[in-house]
Amino acid sequence: MALSDLSADELTRLESELSSEYDSLADRGLSLDLTRGKPSPEQLDLSERLLALPGEGDHTAGKTDVRNYGGGAGLPELRGIIAELLGVDAGRVIAQDNASLSIMYDLLTFSMLFGTPDSERPWKDEPKLRWLCPVPGYDRHFGITEALGIEMIPVAMGEGGPDMDEVEHLVATDPSIKGMWCVPIYSNPTGTVYSDHTVSRLARMAAAAPDFRVIWDNAYVVHTLTEDFPKVPDVDSLAAEAGHPNRFLQVCSTSKITFAGAGVSFLSASEANLDWYLGHTGIRSIGPNKVNQLAHARFFGDADGVRDHMQKHREIVAPKFEAAAAALGRRLGGYDVATWTSPEGGYFIDLEVPDGTATETVRLAKAVGVALTPAGSAYPYGQDPDDRHIRLAPTLPPLAEVEEAMDVVGLCALLAACRDARK
Amino acid sequence: MALSDLSADELTRLESELSSEYDSLADRGLSLDLTRGKPSPEQLDLSERLLALPGEGDHTAGKTDVRNYGGGAGLPELRGIIAELLGVDAGRVIAQDNASLSIMYDLLTFSMLFGTPDSERPWKDEPKLRWLCPVPGYDRHFGITEALGIEMIPVAMGEGGPDMDEVEHLVATDPSIKGMWCVPIYSNPTGTVYSDHTVSRLARMAAAAPDFRVIWDNAYVVHTLTEDFPKVPDVDSLAAEAGHPNRFLQVCSTSKITFAGAGVSFLSASEANLDWYLGHTGIRSIGPNKVNQLAHARFFGDADGVRDHMQKHREIVAPKFEAAAAALGRRLGGYDVATWTSPEGGYFIDLEVPDGTATETVRLAKAVGVALTPAGSAYPYGQDPDDRHIRLAPTLPPLAEVEEAMDVVGLCALLAACRDARK
Repeated sequence: MALSDLSADELTRLESELSSEYDSLADRGLSLDLTRGKPSPEQLDLSERLLALPGEGDHTAGKTDVRNYGGGAGLPELRGIIAELLGVDAGRVIAQDNASLSIMYDLLTFSMLFGTPDSERPWKDEPKLRWLCPVPGYDRHFGITEALGIEMIPVAMGEGGPDMDEVEHLVATDPSIKGMWCVPIYSNPTGTVYSDHTVSRLARMAAAAPDFRVIWDNAYVVHTLTEDFPKVPDVDSLAAEAGHPNRFLQVCSTSKITFAGAGVSFLSASEANLDWYLGHTGIRSIGPNKVNQLAHARFFGDADGVRDHMQKHREIVAPKFEAAAAALGRRLGGYDVATWTSPEGGYFIDLEVPDGTATETVRLAKAVGVALTPAGSAYPYGQDPDDRHIRLAPTLPPLAEVEEAMDVVGLCALLAACRDARK
Repeated sequence: MALSDLSADELTRLESELSSEYDSLADRGLSLDLTRGKPSPEQLDLSERLLALPGEGDHTAGKTDVRNYGGGAGLPELRGIIAELLGVDAGRVIAQDNASLSIMYDLLTFSMLFGTPDSERPWKDEPKLRWLCPVPGYDRHFGITEALGIEMIPVAMGEGGPDMDEVEHLVATDPSIKGMWCVPIYSNPTGTVYSDHTVSRLARMAAAAPDFRVIWDNAYVVHTLTEDFPKVPDVDSLAAEAGHPNRFLQVCSTSKITFAGAGVSFLSASEANLDWYLGHTGIRSIGPNKVNQLAHARFFGDADGVRDHMQKHREIVAPKFEAAAAALGRRLGGYDVATWTSPEGGYFIDLEVPDGTATETVRLAKAVGVALTPAGSAYPYGQDPDDRHIRLAPTLPPLAEVEEAMDVVGLCALLAACRDARK
């Protein structure tokens, strides 16, 4: 019953059936969108109370008037909550504005223009800059390194994280490799959780570049789809023990906890890295939006408040992931042509279709009103060499639309696979 | 009665009197601060209602859910209000996060890393970069250009703005001069309002660098100390008519309208400049904090709402400026040793003391508990060649403290002048 076991006639018949079913979709005038990892309105409603916080009369945190200038490192009240979730000392976390992407961008532009505390010169003055990119990965990460002209080297993701043999070899031998993108928990888009062994190797490995950095984007650190929360490794301590105290630059945010566009972002790193970042960002700004930080501190109360809140997200999001998997299973199960991830957290499903058919699957879906992220977008420069991965984001649409859209995706993937098999 | 008319004996007697009065100040244990242009708690209280806005249930602007990602240019509702205040088309204003300083920083870093739409190459690849700095000026402006290694050239401020003969000559002949800082209305710290003639010359003048830029920091555009509001020149139209459509990059913010640390900042510029900025900032972020933008739109209502609000600020701030001028007048009037500005808006008084005595005046004040911005801080690299200017910021302390602190400043300035005259 696997597609590859079908005779030519059977394949022709299947393609014909799928084609007519596909053609009939055009009449349905669908307009469904699985492109971006955006929270749904129902998820945003969970934080509606924030829109009236901190509230009139509540503008003081400790001795700080949050309405006025200053406080570049952010409010200790909120930093303490996030530090507990990350398992680090509160002094090692600073709170910024609404986007951890902006922190990451600034970390790299500051490195380009001024160099890091461990750099011999600003990165812009290096003859060559390279960066490791576990693939498939996050398109906006790759967008930053591409914009800055840093050559991206893909490294394959496996069960417990990136291929560490390759990472270790590259990082140890090539001093132009200045860093690496990592989403260690519920990785975008595969859902991979880095194993303890992977984390330990990343902390311990030798680097030819003295200023090698791992941007440790813990975007989904509490974004579980189960009743349990993932273990969060204390990467700074591991790296310090291995003699690389400034290796990790950890970021996270409340974008997918409270409001995607109006949350608070955080940077956790060594004292030297934080001092360096705050020194530069202190030229750029007289401090982050502390009113929003106080609102968040009031909203959460404490770290358990965040955990309780994330379980409410799970109740909304987990059924969509289940429905997506079920729809893909109904369409594709048994044909042995595609696999898809069943993540325990995060925002994405990675659908792997037969080599060379991802672009065609996305095209077919788009033509009948189901928008998907362009094939290849989870790869540096938008190029998936095998044209195999499709990132599916099931959180934004209502449950019924997720089911409908995923059914179309499954149909399109199978149709593309059939047509490809008949070539 | 001018200090220079006193005999040696009279001078000795005056210094002796002032010295004993000064010495007695130490016992009073003062702790007064005139360093930064921060709004007072009373001013912040004017916007207290913002702390509960937009409020539960109010999260939509047009078709936009402000809680979610997106909308890099900001909410049209708020942009329209600011555009009216700036006298420009609403399409020519974008709304960002809490600090116009950050917009300015990014404008320069984007230029460094990528070049402007009119640049032949990224500025980092130019052999030499220079920048015009009207002096005295804003220390945080100078901090950005200094951090980026851009050589700063001071240009003297006069009655109606910077010395335009010098500006025109330098800009026309030196292609390494890439831009200029300007605070056109109630300039920091002199309170100068650029004359129509100055603005017109800035728009029309020839520039050797094809990508010459004026960063037009309209930080105090509605910050009047009178019942009237200043006329706001439409610099983009003037520059476009003169064939320099991309010359001006205008910024402003609500930092000193609502909350200093949690306002909204704005960029107004040509379409080409806005597209360029949004292109780069779209890599850096998935959009600004639109919840805060909606809160501001609700709070103001319309442009007249902003103007009404600024008159409430005036009622708090203007008496402090009057008290400051009166205190300085009581101490220094008649001795013909110092002058000070009486601005019609903005946040500062520029006190000019005899050449070579500004540093000593600041030292004397500090020793008895009155903190002033370091002498020279209104100059590039913190160096006032004449050691003459002291920037005084009277907004933050209560009225009584402003009077007390200004009295001490006047005493210290006169004492320093006496001692200097006796040398």
